[in-house]
Amino acid sequence: MSGRFLRLITIDEARRIIDANIQAIGGFEIVPLIEADGRILFEDLHAPVDLPPFNRALMDGYAVRSPDTFGATEEKGIRLKVIGEIRAGDAIEDLEVGRGEAVEVATGARIPERADSVLMVEFADRVGEDELIVYRHVAPGENIQMRGDDIRRGENLLRRGTGIHAREIGILAALGMDQIKVLRRPRVCVISTGNELEYPGRELREGKIFDANGYMITAALLELGADASFIGVIRDSYDELRGTLESAISEGFDIVIISGGTSAGRGDILYRVVEDLGELLIHGVRIKPGKPFLFGLCRDVPIFGLPGYPVSAMITFETFVEPVLQRLTGTGPGEKKRVKATVGARIHSAKGRQELMPVRLEDSSEGVIAYQVHGGSGAIRTLLDLDGYIRIGEEVEIVEEGEEVEVELRVGRGNLPPVPP
Amino acid sequence: MSGRFLRLITIDEARRIIDANIQAIGGFEIVPLIEADGRILFEDLHAPVDLPPFNRALMDGYAVRSPDTFGATEEKGIRLKVIGEIRAGDAIEDLEVGRGEAVEVATGARIPERADSVLMVEFADRVGEDELIVYRHVAPGENIQMRGDDIRRGENLLRRGTGIHAREIGILAALGMDQIKVLRRPRVCVISTGNELEYPGRELREGKIFDANGYMITAALLELGADASFIGVIRDSYDELRGTLESAISEGFDIVIISGGTSAGRGDILYRVVEDLGELLIHGVRIKPGKPFLFGLCRDVPIFGLPGYPVSAMITFETFVEPVLQRLTGTGPGEKKRVKATVGARIHSAKGRQELMPVRLEDSSEGVIAYQVHGGSGAIRTLLDLDGYIRIGEEVEIVEEGEEVEVELRVGRGNLPPVPP
Repeated sequence: MSGRFLRLITIDEARRIIDANIQAIGGFEIVPLIEADGRILFEDLHAPVDLPPFNRALMDGYAVRSPDTFGATEEKGIRLKVIGEIRAGDAIEDLEVGRGEAVEVATGARIPERADSVLMVEFADRVGEDELIVYRHVAPGENIQMRGDDIRRGENLLRRGTGIHAREIGILAALGMDQIKVLRRPRVCVISTGNELEYPGRELREGKIFDANGYMITAALLELGADASFIGVIRDSYDELRGTLESAISEGFDIVIISGGTSAGRGDILYRVVEDLGELLIHGVRIKPGKPFLFGLCRDVPIFGLPGYPVSAMITFETFVEPVLQRLTGTGPGEKKRVKATVGARIHSAKGRQELMPVRLEDSSEGVIAYQVHGGSGAIRTLLDLDGYIRIGEEVEIVEEGEEVEVELRVGRGNLPPVPP
Repeated sequence: MSGRFLRLITIDEARRIIDANIQAIGGFEIVPLIEADGRILFEDLHAPVDLPPFNRALMDGYAVRSPDTFGATEEKGIRLKVIGEIRAGDAIEDLEVGRGEAVEVATGARIPERADSVLMVEFADRVGEDELIVYRHVAPGENIQMRGDDIRRGENLLRRGTGIHAREIGILAALGMDQIKVLRRPRVCVISTGNELEYPGRELREGKIFDANGYMITAALLELGADASFIGVIRDSYDELRGTLESAISEGFDIVIISGGTSAGRGDILYRVVEDLGELLIHGVRIKPGKPFLFGLCRDVPIFGLPGYPVSAMITFETFVEPVLQRLTGTGPGEKKRVKATVGARIHSAKGRQELMPVRLEDSSEGVIAYQVHGGSGAIRTLLDLDGYIRIGEEVEIVEEGEEVEVELRVGRGNLPPVPP
């Protein structure tokens, strides 16, 4: 009556098999600077220019030759002749500071030739149009940032693999770069299977339900930085599934994720398609929910088969797919947020399978209380109510009321403060 | 020689003034389901349908009338007549289960009329085409999920203000919703000012530097969920700045962020424009770097003026703008990640201003060591090297080597593991 699972394996065995069969995503893309945010640098970044690109005034004041100021004090000023002014952004033209001369400069302005320092505006008095009385001496180099002092052209600034965020965008912009070579994102194709499934937004005919997994898994993939496409709902038909899978592979998707049709019953044909097109490597894991999880390679493209029930699909996605995506996109193993909680009412668990028990959390005066979310993996209410999971070991059958447990929180848990009207 | 600051105020005073002058963003947008990811629900979501939408089989088996199975045991089976089959997604047509009859059903299938339970496939033997021997009795309702059992039509499922992530996408999809009413994102306009600034990607003429702030601030805003536009680099000209600001306001931006031209020197004209177009509420904060920070209202539109140096711009952005955006986008006050560290070498700080001292972190056998990043707020190297900040109080002038401090980490700190070749 029923098909067969391969030998049921543990979560850790399954993860090892998956890791061993997923290759890094190669290749790069060149994107406009602002679109590089959230991406990964494809190659070492060597500074294409010196920063600053010229000797630059660090203060508002006067560019002078420092020896001309030696001996100046508050009591006994020294007179210099102001021969010009350079504002930030101005070219210096042929301006050259001779002995006894000064050029007014603004912060950020290019320093004219032969000046070696900037006297701050506070330490001088301007007299008339072109005379200056200097009340302090300056040292050579004072208040000047020399060309290349900040960043030297050719320096290796950011390493291949660096995650690009606002700060890196600022650095790249300062270097004048507007096109950035970033790691290609993994192209992931999402397919839902099931004769009973209808697209959200369509009319629901008798016997049909709306597909939750297609968009949910696609959203989760996009959040992980993948280039994800939900290519649609298909029927439980060997030919249709095989054809869809073959075209996804030939269109160059790096990974295919299919939900539904993974169990070993009569109508479940995914495992046969994977066997016929390639190699079925995992079929059945000692995890609850999520036992019918499936993994294989079809023409070297990894195929993940998630159970059709939304909660099972989400839990197997987080357990097996998410770590792979984090590796491929370079976002690294994400830390799951965890909280300690006390079990509010006895929880029964299945022996022989590690159980990820959905719980909701309540705050109390004695701390956080975790209650099992009943409703099961087929219920949308479970998806709605769960704040996180408790991991219950294969050999544990009962978690008693009052036991302290660690809860792995769902991303985006709970409601935000209400929006003002 | 120099202009004037308003009275210098503390960070907390500045935050209070800003908070009191920023209104919630009103209005909504309707977006396709997948684009609702990362957005905020605009109104309470009432379930538009019952889930499941029909009485549904929870197991593969036979839909029966439970009284027909009473008395069945493993030793003494009861015979029923199989009158049809319903798979998941099938309409039931006019199928009705009479006395002594059974209909084969798959998990997820609609239950035919007059059947009240599903006998699991394991507890029956099929004999020939249409005969069934039943070896167990079933209770009314067994293995059936009734219409609306999971979600009742009209129920308030998700509250206004809920952040939408993959899980919520799944719930909305299951309810058949493909168009979602979400809170409008704040439209923020970013402007860089400075005669010395050139766009990344352009040729750098003499005396010019590339603008780092425009794209950096825009990226930071996008990361916070704003609808941010970098509208360009403008010159230090009263007329140009005033004209740009007026058109930004009339184009309906909710917030304007300008970097550069905030200090009180000769060339700094932003504060005058803000005074002339509206009200200058903050000009000068006891923070280092970032003292020339400016805030005002022009025709009720909040204007933030950030200093031109990239590090100062980033620090004032994080201190004053980021909390506002987190409030407006409903992403809530973000938690800054912090680590404890030991100061590796004495740090001098300015008295009278709270200093956010950029530090880089090194791991050592005795824990994390924090070193001051020299280079100053004008240096791109500071932007590159800093892993976080130490907050040094207004009255503290020296932080000694060996002192334990708390470091606020930058988002996206450090390099990720190298990308495989």
